[in-house]
Amino acid sequence: MRIPYDEMKRELTRVLKKHGVEAGRAERSAELFADASRDGIYTHGLNRFPAFIRAIGDGDVDVHARASFEEKIGVMERWNGNRGIGNLNASAAMERAVALAKEYGIGVVGLKNTNHWMRPGNYGLMAVEKNCIGILWTNTLPNMPPWGGRDARLGNNPIVFAVPNGGEPVLLDIAMSMFAYGKLETYARQGRELPMDGGFDKNQQPTRDAAEIIETQQILPFGFWKGSGLALMLDLVAAAISGGLTTREVGEYPRETAVSQVFIAIDLESLPNRDLYLEQVKATLADLQTSTPREEGRPPAYPGQHMMAVRRENMKRGIPVEESIWDKIKAM
Amino acid sequence: MRIPYDEMKRELTRVLKKHGVEAGRAERSAELFADASRDGIYTHGLNRFPAFIRAIGDGDVDVHARASFEEKIGVMERWNGNRGIGNLNASAAMERAVALAKEYGIGVVGLKNTNHWMRPGNYGLMAVEKNCIGILWTNTLPNMPPWGGRDARLGNNPIVFAVPNGGEPVLLDIAMSMFAYGKLETYARQGRELPMDGGFDKNQQPTRDAAEIIETQQILPFGFWKGSGLALMLDLVAAAISGGLTTREVGEYPRETAVSQVFIAIDLESLPNRDLYLEQVKATLADLQTSTPREEGRPPAYPGQHMMAVRRENMKRGIPVEESIWDKIKAM
Repeated sequence: MRIPYDEMKRELTRVLKKHGVEAGRAERSAELFADASRDGIYTHGLNRFPAFIRAIGDGDVDVHARASFEEKIGVMERWNGNRGIGNLNASAAMERAVALAKEYGIGVVGLKNTNHWMRPGNYGLMAVEKNCIGILWTNTLPNMPPWGGRDARLGNNPIVFAVPNGGEPVLLDIAMSMFAYGKLETYARQGRELPMDGGFDKNQQPTRDAAEIIETQQILPFGFWKGSGLALMLDLVAAAISGGLTTREVGEYPRETAVSQVFIAIDLESLPNRDLYLEQVKATLADLQTSTPREEGRPPAYPGQHMMAVRRENMKRGIPVEESIWDKIKAM
Repeated sequence: MRIPYDEMKRELTRVLKKHGVEAGRAERSAELFADASRDGIYTHGLNRFPAFIRAIGDGDVDVHARASFEEKIGVMERWNGNRGIGNLNASAAMERAVALAKEYGIGVVGLKNTNHWMRPGNYGLMAVEKNCIGILWTNTLPNMPPWGGRDARLGNNPIVFAVPNGGEPVLLDIAMSMFAYGKLETYARQGRELPMDGGFDKNQQPTRDAAEIIETQQILPFGFWKGSGLALMLDLVAAAISGGLTTREVGEYPRETAVSQVFIAIDLESLPNRDLYLEQVKATLADLQTSTPREEGRPPAYPGQHMMAVRRENMKRGIPVEESIWDKIKAM
């Protein structure tokens, strides 16, 4: 079934208000959930909402807490998420990074003690709307073994790069594991094989069997030692800038909370060569698509290229939802 | 054979001076080459020196050009490498980023119109010596097909993250391809199979045969679409910050030159919690090594962990060199 964007947002707002979120904040948080589904990121939109409501009930998310300014370090700012609503905290931090970028060319905000930000790409698109490049990442609880190890010691620490490009932004939104757990669950449910190894099986062999990987909890860093190394560095830099916890420390909580995030904005309006720069972006994206396709009829795409088409379709025809999830939310 | 560090540096200084480099600059450039070999990065140290001297002869590198200040954009600075010596330009840019970090907490320098910086890790270690986190990357000529394509449209755009950790820095120094061409050449020469797919063969199948990949020039981005996406974003951000060329534009030259680079330093001395932070780093690195090893007796290591041991060994016993390369340099 398909649900109109406005209806989805209204329904999620209603549930959030019922759980104690103030009206304006409920609406913004609901919007961020709906935006994810609108853009085709269903796993981090509506589908994640029930788990988010559960986290409120469990006391992991304090609906009344707001992000508060902690300190300024040179031109960087540190904010405290006070274990409030993750997407509202991240949204506030990105807004602040953009404001700093308008002042200093670049804006850097660290956000500590916050909760899962749901779809990372939302905050990159916020930067893009203000004509900024957005770069942001988060740490997570330990959920990925380091290269060469079996036990999770690293987070899969998603990172986003977003670059303005007229109405067709470039948006890279990736975690440090080859496949996210959400993706593994989809493959497992459908009984499909992963297109490449995604982790290790019970015999400690690399495998494309998603169900086995979910069982062993041994997901593979993308690019093996490279994604493993990147995950570590993103964690250490996030802790430095935010003054918050490392993945190891987040792991001391019974469930993921109090994570550390970084929000960087680079203001394109501040660049003397901004018009030329936008032409450089356009030319690069066009050039990339001229590489002979590996599969006939499927030219290489840039990150985010297909998103706007999904968005237009979903805004026109409604957002696809799993009926059972929608019913669950209606009953909340 | 092994050559003492000082002798290597002296010899390279001599050759550089003979090619018109001023004494102090020759010494610093030679030092950066020797440092790479000292730390075990032979491909980007001594072994690369003859190709570098050739680039001077070809007119790609202007030995008299110095990096010059271009403009300030908020707190960011843009510098022009004037197609001078790549490692000296990069060294100057990192020095400037560190100086800005001491002033603003974070220092961001874009360097355009420069040449290959040889070993990237050197500049990360420069930041670490000044108690800064260093993050830096470069674009390159198009040398890697985007995910889904056969023809090179992306650079393999190496990136470095360096984090201080007493005398044992954390240093991640990776390109966006699964294997660097230098590494492929080593495997091909030794007739060894790559440990995982590194590119595509003549039949457009994924392969571990390094020689075939060198022939097709179809190296694989690490993590498939993820490394491909990252390479694109690093290129676009490098062009934005530096005001220089994109990979596509660098590809219009007959040989790689006029590349764009970014140098970021984050000053740990500016952090109110700097002592606690260093403890967080130490605890994370220790924790990572407690993950049950996949191969008995080989606990997971953090990036750069084995480097200092190599450095100590090479400083004590001399730096291993291939005799033919050393003879060549002696005769220059």
